[in-house]
Amino acid sequence: MAKSARLSGFPERLPAERVIERSIIDVLEHTFALHGYSALNHRAVEPISQLAKDGEIDKEIFAVSRLHSEGTERNPLGLHFDLTVPLARFIADNANELSFPFKAARIQPVWRGERPQQGRYREFIQADIDVVAEAELPGHFEVEIPLAVADAFSRLAPLGVPGVKIVVNDRRLLEGFARGIGLTNIQAVLRCLDKYDKIGPAEVGKLLAAEAEADEEQQRLCLALAAIESDSPDFADDVRALGVEHPLLDEGLDSLTTMLRAAHERAPGVVVAQLKIARGLDYYTGAVYETQLIGHEELGSVASGGRYDSLVTVGKKSYPGVGMSIGVSRLMAFILDADSGIKATRGTPSAVVVAVTDEDKRGEADAVATALRARDIACEVSPSAAKFGKQIRYAERRGIPFVWFTEGESGHEIKDIRSGEQAPANPQTWEPVAADRKPLVYRD
Amino acid sequence: MAKSARLSGFPERLPAERVIERSIIDVLEHTFALHGYSALNHRAVEPISQLAKDGEIDKEIFAVSRLHSEGTERNPLGLHFDLTVPLARFIADNANELSFPFKAARIQPVWRGERPQQGRYREFIQADIDVVAEAELPGHFEVEIPLAVADAFSRLAPLGVPGVKIVVNDRRLLEGFARGIGLTNIQAVLRCLDKYDKIGPAEVGKLLAAEAEADEEQQRLCLALAAIESDSPDFADDVRALGVEHPLLDEGLDSLTTMLRAAHERAPGVVVAQLKIARGLDYYTGAVYETQLIGHEELGSVASGGRYDSLVTVGKKSYPGVGMSIGVSRLMAFILDADSGIKATRGTPSAVVVAVTDEDKRGEADAVATALRARDIACEVSPSAAKFGKQIRYAERRGIPFVWFTEGESGHEIKDIRSGEQAPANPQTWEPVAADRKPLVYRD
Repeated sequence: MAKSARLSGFPERLPAERVIERSIIDVLEHTFALHGYSALNHRAVEPISQLAKDGEIDKEIFAVSRLHSEGTERNPLGLHFDLTVPLARFIADNANELSFPFKAARIQPVWRGERPQQGRYREFIQADIDVVAEAELPGHFEVEIPLAVADAFSRLAPLGVPGVKIVVNDRRLLEGFARGIGLTNIQAVLRCLDKYDKIGPAEVGKLLAAEAEADEEQQRLCLALAAIESDSPDFADDVRALGVEHPLLDEGLDSLTTMLRAAHERAPGVVVAQLKIARGLDYYTGAVYETQLIGHEELGSVASGGRYDSLVTVGKKSYPGVGMSIGVSRLMAFILDADSGIKATRGTPSAVVVAVTDEDKRGEADAVATALRARDIACEVSPSAAKFGKQIRYAERRGIPFVWFTEGESGHEIKDIRSGEQAPANPQTWEPVAADRKPLVYRD
Repeated sequence: MAKSARLSGFPERLPAERVIERSIIDVLEHTFALHGYSALNHRAVEPISQLAKDGEIDKEIFAVSRLHSEGTERNPLGLHFDLTVPLARFIADNANELSFPFKAARIQPVWRGERPQQGRYREFIQADIDVVAEAELPGHFEVEIPLAVADAFSRLAPLGVPGVKIVVNDRRLLEGFARGIGLTNIQAVLRCLDKYDKIGPAEVGKLLAAEAEADEEQQRLCLALAAIESDSPDFADDVRALGVEHPLLDEGLDSLTTMLRAAHERAPGVVVAQLKIARGLDYYTGAVYETQLIGHEELGSVASGGRYDSLVTVGKKSYPGVGMSIGVSRLMAFILDADSGIKATRGTPSAVVVAVTDEDKRGEADAVATALRARDIACEVSPSAAKFGKQIRYAERRGIPFVWFTEGESGHEIKDIRSGEQAPANPQTWEPVAADRKPLVYRD
């Protein structure tokens, strides 16, 4: 017998909340399709050997094993912690069946064994788009990905989701800069910079000394770089003014400048170069992205990603890619906060309750429901024969706007329970207005 | 770095296959909404204490644990193996927030550690609808559930899915009959009957003797009952003719007769009483359902379920329910078999490739794509500047019907690559026909 068993970090939505979550997912799916991304759905598990890397992430893996298996499994499995690693493996599995560049969209749960906290869960939904090419990935895809995400957020605006600022950087720029000033432990430099917003520049300086052996001048230069932020391609001048030289720095600067120029034209103000952005995950090799909800920066990034050149290799072929992941569950944390004002008109799909006044006449009510459904109008038949008042309260409790009576004064009648208006109606022709047809999401 | 890692029993779909799977899911979601079922999405995990019952099912559970947790977890978790147990727990968690009778729909993966075989997976998608009431569940919901499922299958017919026969029985009828002839190990009787189709009546007779201590006359009566099959409510006469009496038998017979009468009226021929149906799961207490694809009975049941009166209890309140689960992955096994003839027109959402003939003019192509997307036409911009022929082959390989040229003889032109026809086009007004707008599923 089932008992109540809430689990911290595993959010579940009530019906009206799920209407909102699903509306967000629908907008994202639709936007991804408009941009030509093929929808995929990855299996939940991967061999742990695919998931556990040298990076920090292996702490967070949920292992999966058959409860009654005897001894150790030959091929131990874990739940995927993102949608990039499964895509890379999917491409390795199916390279011969796919056409490249391959554009993939996935919206599904991922799992991490982290300590749950506000906006961070153990099971959460991500919405990812990626472009993966064979051998060469043209730089314009590094522009396309954040602009597709920006388009998705602009299509979420009618639901009440605030605008976004997508902040970008380039791993090559950071690595080239670090090497150019004589630092060699690049992973340590990236890890330190990644903490800039959390601990501030002074602490990052100390950390650079401790972890990357940076002297005072090297710290000063790193912090000067990290402070650069601009939505104009001219940010490159500020970098050049620091007087550091390295071929990788040039490569990263060129790429980021091109991105900003294109973004400036196609979505002015949305994409901003922010040179302190490093991203924790170790597989990025070019552009990196984070996304802030304007006015709600404290939420952290709601869409992140980057370019990865060496995640997929099949035989001698490499498949470089670039992608971003929208944190649907983190967005939901913001939306479900009462302050957001975002609500659903109702949690049930039904627009109509067909009343049953006598259990022997349930068949008549069923026939009305069948006729309405044939014309795409969601409805339900009253669960029990009852007086009019009880039928109306049943609808009211669920936010269903209409009650249908098969035996009104003039035969079939429909009542709008909000206005109290009741009028004759024909199950073959009656139509609700669009706003009543389906549950809608709106901002109060 | 990702390596190829196919896992037996964890199917993943290629893009065109996913178009088909998603079309099926869309039809089911839409049908469930039309019938007033609120969409929910359960977390993937439950405490193992909720999942592991006395029944056989506990062998099949996948346990989940943090890879780097120290010692044993206080609250060990497992992946859910169906969508009924999570719903029961969800209701126990949220009874005060829900209105009853509560109608829930869920379409999501479940996991079982079974040995994979044709149509049976370790991760598979189920589509469930359930009605759960407070204290009393009116019998008409036992009719509503299979009729909603029948409606779903009739809406899948245009995609090429064959018609179905929903076979029904009632646990009370079986239990009452068994008790009426003096058998007391009811679980054993149900288990034996459940093997009727696999091993045949003679072997079921032997099994009844061995496991339920049935003598020859008891075996004869059980097998006579199991042989009864009819789409008419008159099947009850055949049961009565066996001369067995028990109050529970009467209750089950009444309920099943009512169901067949209503089904006979609303969906003639679809619902058939088949008294050998028992279902393996131990939580059913009333109606039980299985569903056969007509002409493909060897696939086994593609939609099963039943009534459960004691799955949810909160304090002193009980919440009886009834539901069915459509096996989406099992349906997909049938559909992806070449013999089904079911195909998708393409695996990419794009209806148009906007050609780029010169990398410097990519901005013009981007502008066309933006204009088309603003009018809900999915498209992509060519990944690299190339000659016309190469752009057309790019579209061809993906099944994309149209290529847009920004510099045709008369300016903007669109080419239907199937007919070769090319005509002037305006990005603000050009429309594809409906059949080309999105990937479609059809039967060859």
